[in-house]
Amino acid sequence: MNTLSNDQRSPSAAALDAADPLAPIRNAFSIPNGVIYLDGNSLGAVQKGIAERIDRVVKEQWGEGLIRSWNDADWYEMPMRVGDRIAPLIGAGPGEVVVGDSTSISLFRVVAAGLGLQPDRNVIVTEGGNFPTDLYILEGLQGLRHDLEIRQSSAGQDPAELLDQRTALLVLTQVDYKSGLVKDMKRLTEAAHAAGALAVWDLSHSTGIIPVELNASGADFAIGCGYKYLNGGPGAPSYTWVAPRHVNRVAQPLAGWLGHNDPFAFTPEYVPAPGIRRFITGTQQVLSLAALDEAMKIWEEISIAQVREKSILQTSRFIEGVEARCEGLGLALASPRDPAARGGQVSFTHERGYAVMQALIARGVVGDFRAPNLLRFGFSPLYLSFAEIDRAVDVLAEILTTRSWDDPRYTERRRVT
Amino acid sequence: MNTLSNDQRSPSAAALDAADPLAPIRNAFSIPNGVIYLDGNSLGAVQKGIAERIDRVVKEQWGEGLIRSWNDADWYEMPMRVGDRIAPLIGAGPGEVVVGDSTSISLFRVVAAGLGLQPDRNVIVTEGGNFPTDLYILEGLQGLRHDLEIRQSSAGQDPAELLDQRTALLVLTQVDYKSGLVKDMKRLTEAAHAAGALAVWDLSHSTGIIPVELNASGADFAIGCGYKYLNGGPGAPSYTWVAPRHVNRVAQPLAGWLGHNDPFAFTPEYVPAPGIRRFITGTQQVLSLAALDEAMKIWEEISIAQVREKSILQTSRFIEGVEARCEGLGLALASPRDPAARGGQVSFTHERGYAVMQALIARGVVGDFRAPNLLRFGFSPLYLSFAEIDRAVDVLAEILTTRSWDDPRYTERRRVT
Repeated sequence: MNTLSNDQRSPSAAALDAADPLAPIRNAFSIPNGVIYLDGNSLGAVQKGIAERIDRVVKEQWGEGLIRSWNDADWYEMPMRVGDRIAPLIGAGPGEVVVGDSTSISLFRVVAAGLGLQPDRNVIVTEGGNFPTDLYILEGLQGLRHDLEIRQSSAGQDPAELLDQRTALLVLTQVDYKSGLVKDMKRLTEAAHAAGALAVWDLSHSTGIIPVELNASGADFAIGCGYKYLNGGPGAPSYTWVAPRHVNRVAQPLAGWLGHNDPFAFTPEYVPAPGIRRFITGTQQVLSLAALDEAMKIWEEISIAQVREKSILQTSRFIEGVEARCEGLGLALASPRDPAARGGQVSFTHERGYAVMQALIARGVVGDFRAPNLLRFGFSPLYLSFAEIDRAVDVLAEILTTRSWDDPRYTERRRVT
Repeated sequence: MNTLSNDQRSPSAAALDAADPLAPIRNAFSIPNGVIYLDGNSLGAVQKGIAERIDRVVKEQWGEGLIRSWNDADWYEMPMRVGDRIAPLIGAGPGEVVVGDSTSISLFRVVAAGLGLQPDRNVIVTEGGNFPTDLYILEGLQGLRHDLEIRQSSAGQDPAELLDQRTALLVLTQVDYKSGLVKDMKRLTEAAHAAGALAVWDLSHSTGIIPVELNASGADFAIGCGYKYLNGGPGAPSYTWVAPRHVNRVAQPLAGWLGHNDPFAFTPEYVPAPGIRRFITGTQQVLSLAALDEAMKIWEEISIAQVREKSILQTSRFIEGVEARCEGLGLALASPRDPAARGGQVSFTHERGYAVMQALIARGVVGDFRAPNLLRFGFSPLYLSFAEIDRAVDVLAEILTTRSWDDPRYTERRRVT
């Protein structure tokens, strides 16, 4: 085992932190003392301004304004306004993104809308390793469309191989939730189009951590999550994008009054609003939406290019540190070694992964575990320093060297892992 | 015009307020000065403890606890726990109600689930005057199930007349959003069952204002809104109930990971959780859900019977007051005169209804307007006094007598009315 400690490495973490243009951004966040938070890919940290913003929404807008705040506080436009904040991060234009409801529900809407554009095709191609809720949503749609066939690529197989003239949609997650592998959106979208299919992208593990180019890659539909790298808070609403060339000719099945062209006319027939607004269903959860709105303001000061640059430095340093310090201790890298093919997370397998992660969390290094054996570490460059990465490596090396994970405290399963 | 002013009436408002067992409950709410709030049927008012609760969720649970709060703050169980708070108000048992997502989305889930129980039937009976989003959701389902036929009763027609052996579901709103008319849930459910159909109830304008007896009436499915009489906050999540005799054999199409039997096993196949939990789709919006949870605590101190008793006194007094003071001024009652047939709101038509409502709002009497000509006044007995009702009658009489609504300020349409 290579015992070169992290503080002997060159460049030093201190030097990297001193040179980091994003370092001051950490001050906008509240990170608890004693925690090195490597789970921002699961739930992003809170910014200091959010409590105050929500307090204002509750006391002034709801409390004082009451129903009038739909106009006066512009709650009505919030799904579009927050969408406009997200658009630049995903290569979309203004007015092309709308925010609301859970990621699963947004996926249901775009997949159903995409199927509607392909009346003569009945196959959806996806990957077996997709995030399970994406697979469940497709399965749920099958319950309504019995002729629907779902083809899943097997591990390592290029899903493009499964495309054919019956394929309506290719539904993929751009960054794999387990390995962090980044798929080539442009190549796969072009492959879908070459087969006459449309491409639907889940950007949950992409947005806010790698540059995404929806329009430039020719994508057709996209959705993603508000509570990971966008730091919108627990269960923050998701977002939806539809290519402008499709949006005014698609129908989505969760047709609700706030996606209507004139909601307050209360007409019995549904007439979809022009543009992406038709992907709104019912009334949005304003408190949660306001938290995401507030969280997104940080992007007025920083660019996704800066984030990506720091992200690559941080994930690379973590891999190098762990491999140098933990050789022979049962870890195997489960993420791409090539930084260009890697998102914001690094995963390692370990036979006793669950207990190792619990031991890490007990020491203040908070990552997560994915069954059966995956230790997942997410690196959010907005609030993570290089010094913390080195420290996380130290703690992991110490736990594995001393086998301190082998303690009954760390093996009892908790509900959310 | 009868000019007997409200303060000459017997019993006086002061006497009624003094005898009102719910009067102290108003102290739990923050009602802005100078406002008589008659729109709690659209957005309920805020309780004082909610800002503090949400502040704790943001700073402690999200900020300090981070991802660990899914276990430690029990976010994971919140949809069921809040459901258990709602259950007694709707005649449901513990563990039978789950909270999450918008009312429209919850309706989609139960209607689709109900259709799944009726494979040989393809007709949904509803009423033309149903809240439009309910009709849009049915229309949206039709986009996925092309064989689905939707039959709407016309104004005044008993929807039971439209039931036949092809009818899969009867989908009704119990309390009409315009008139406040209460439908007989038991009779209509029995009529549906007699035709071999199942009954789906939208309780948005019922829950928290009239007693609802889902189990006792034999209903099959129900959903409703969290932000009206439950005072859960803007866009608060909705709730879903499924009769225990059905729940373990229904499938709903928005199958997401948090409705899975073992979400963190990340299996590629969807296995629904037992019971109502299968009606959860994705991750819930925790801030908005926590506000509803906090708002529901008030029901530990009061009963729906108390609320209904006060509600009938208040709506009756408003009708009598308005009819005594505003005769010949263009108003016509659009709500049932029989209190047993009336929910928590009173509506009047007026040719210039929009301008009249704007003039009322400018004077601090906040109701709402529904096109083309409906003035809608909702009475939430939790925070409304009898003195305020008399005062609202006075202001309305004054506006109509002086025709002060006839002012260009009051005719310009705002987005949300």
